[in-house]
Amino acid sequence: MRREVYFDNAATTRPDPRVVEAMLPYLSEKYGNPLSIYPLGVEARNAIEEARESVAELVGGKPKSSYFTSSGSEANNLAIKGFAFATADKGKHIVASAIEHQSILNSLQSLRKLGWEYTLVDVDEFGLVGPAQIADAMRDDTVLVAVNLANQEIGTIEPIAEIAEVVHERKAKLHVDAVQAVGHIPADMKELGADMLSVSGHRFFGPKGAGALVLAPGTRVLPLIDGGMQERGRRAGTEDVPAIVGLGEAARIAINEMNGRSAKVRKVRDSLHERLFSTIKHVKLNGHPEKRLPAYESVCIEYIEGESMLLFLGGEGIYTSSGSTCSSKALKASHVLMALGLDAATAQGSLQMTLGPDNNEEDVDYVIDKLAPIVDRLRQMSPIYPGD
Amino acid sequence: MRREVYFDNAATTRPDPRVVEAMLPYLSEKYGNPLSIYPLGVEARNAIEEARESVAELVGGKPKSSYFTSSGSEANNLAIKGFAFATADKGKHIVASAIEHQSILNSLQSLRKLGWEYTLVDVDEFGLVGPAQIADAMRDDTVLVAVNLANQEIGTIEPIAEIAEVVHERKAKLHVDAVQAVGHIPADMKELGADMLSVSGHRFFGPKGAGALVLAPGTRVLPLIDGGMQERGRRAGTEDVPAIVGLGEAARIAINEMNGRSAKVRKVRDSLHERLFSTIKHVKLNGHPEKRLPAYESVCIEYIEGESMLLFLGGEGIYTSSGSTCSSKALKASHVLMALGLDAATAQGSLQMTLGPDNNEEDVDYVIDKLAPIVDRLRQMSPIYPGD
Repeated sequence: MRREVYFDNAATTRPDPRVVEAMLPYLSEKYGNPLSIYPLGVEARNAIEEARESVAELVGGKPKSSYFTSSGSEANNLAIKGFAFATADKGKHIVASAIEHQSILNSLQSLRKLGWEYTLVDVDEFGLVGPAQIADAMRDDTVLVAVNLANQEIGTIEPIAEIAEVVHERKAKLHVDAVQAVGHIPADMKELGADMLSVSGHRFFGPKGAGALVLAPGTRVLPLIDGGMQERGRRAGTEDVPAIVGLGEAARIAINEMNGRSAKVRKVRDSLHERLFSTIKHVKLNGHPEKRLPAYESVCIEYIEGESMLLFLGGEGIYTSSGSTCSSKALKASHVLMALGLDAATAQGSLQMTLGPDNNEEDVDYVIDKLAPIVDRLRQMSPIYPGD
Repeated sequence: MRREVYFDNAATTRPDPRVVEAMLPYLSEKYGNPLSIYPLGVEARNAIEEARESVAELVGGKPKSSYFTSSGSEANNLAIKGFAFATADKGKHIVASAIEHQSILNSLQSLRKLGWEYTLVDVDEFGLVGPAQIADAMRDDTVLVAVNLANQEIGTIEPIAEIAEVVHERKAKLHVDAVQAVGHIPADMKELGADMLSVSGHRFFGPKGAGALVLAPGTRVLPLIDGGMQERGRRAGTEDVPAIVGLGEAARIAINEMNGRSAKVRKVRDSLHERLFSTIKHVKLNGHPEKRLPAYESVCIEYIEGESMLLFLGGEGIYTSSGSTCSSKALKASHVLMALGLDAATAQGSLQMTLGPDNNEEDVDYVIDKLAPIVDRLRQMSPIYPGD
């Protein structure tokens, strides 16, 4: 029997029904502009501030240094460029891991055109960033280090607290892109030692259109979007009240339910892992065997081409990714997989499955049942397949 | 009998129920990431492209050079800074009217810190920008001129087509902030001669969280938000599909209904104007008597303090603004009113009433009934009121 199996929660998640419920009034009768001083405006402003408290609580930050953005990408841009602009007189060198999200890497490229320099630090075969390698890359003029808490494509969880130590010893600040991690694993800024941390609503059952950058006390950024006094002057533009309320609700739900939710996802993921590796030959796990996000099963299936596999799987109602969604249209080999040391041919067979709380063992059965013959068929067509 | 009268449509509008209806599926079952290649992603991508066609049609632009942003402010930032960065080798001088929105003026200030220069052009007592004054302000290195189609605070409609002529004669490009005008009056880029035009959904019965920058062929901007390949590399971050779909629906509605809607609003506004000026003494109209947006009745009520008036009106269920909503928390005298040549004391008594299609004659009766005694009371308390 045909099923629909959504195994692409890294790309986006279905908003929790409670999130949508919380948003709806702000799309209709509660439509006030949060800057307006009459009740309709105050109501919207209060809703934003309540959401800000939930988001800050979820990541161990302070509401007054939590700023809403339109996406995780915007939060990362604000962190990298906003911080660089604010510290231009202190130094113009930034260190980042080689497997950061494009919104970090491309922000660094933009800064380079304006006179900044940056150094990318390699990762090991599991995608782990070494604190010693970070220390080696830092210079006297390094003002900022950026390392993701968990990688978007492979889910590897980085040793942020150790990295924070070497960064702070050298008087620089640490930005942590926690977009894939928040709402899935604990991400407490104080425990991590993060000076800036990025959040994205739609990556943990909140809506698209709302993200946040949370700053530690004493960390300052200049705005990317200039204009009115919204977000205390750090980010202009009329607030997307419904999306912000939805993000706040997603944060509230995560505070209460994340541990149970992630345990459930991990159990099904582990089952998928076992079935996959026992059923299909020549499969390689991408990312760390243990230190990875509970939803992630990112693999390379050798001797096949990932795009074809995705299309065949899509035809069976199975929705997955090959490498990063954000680069999928660019049709380039993933910079993350290349950084792991994979050869280009193997990286071509990338299959990223990221589970959600609605997935179950029947989904795993269905995916394995459909995937195995697709892999066989594609391998039969491959001129380089050596056979079983 | 107590009513609720929303007279602040310049700050934000209540989304049309059809807009909300169009958005809802994309908050729940149609939650795919537009970059994903399986049906759930394709469905979201198609919805975005359909919205893009509606927005482009509304402003006489091309879908392929229409870029979604999270707000009108972001669209203005992308226009000013993105264009400046893209033309840095051609010249670093920008001309703008003195009554541009803060998102324009503060973008210019940010550019100044990076080595650009700008000149602000004064307006006349009605807020009109003179094409000759624009020409005078332009230099050999002027790359861009920015003039709003209709001003946010006073609604004055600028002679954009004439301004475009002098700008193009001098080989510069023209950005038109049409955030307050789009969906209320015709705003065709080709007729206006605009090279860039900004749109904001929530200012014409669409949702918060979606705006657009539409470029004429041959005009190029560099992205402000770097990252993935969304919006053809001009604006990274997972698209806010529901908000974009809502903006598209608002555009579709405006294409069909704008003329009738605006005629209805204008009739009630004209009635408000007559009643106001025949009932209350010492009132001054801000903006042009004829060349202003149909929703706008922006006045200064002399010898009173606007903030108190707003609070009293709010207590009666009447929602209005004093100056720009975006600057209302800044508690500064409006730069627009000062540019009209008003003295600071008069500008203090600013009352901006902006009507919507749901307002009617009963609303006008109610507002005049409540406003007159409030004005009396405040004037009795004023040490400078000369009496009737």
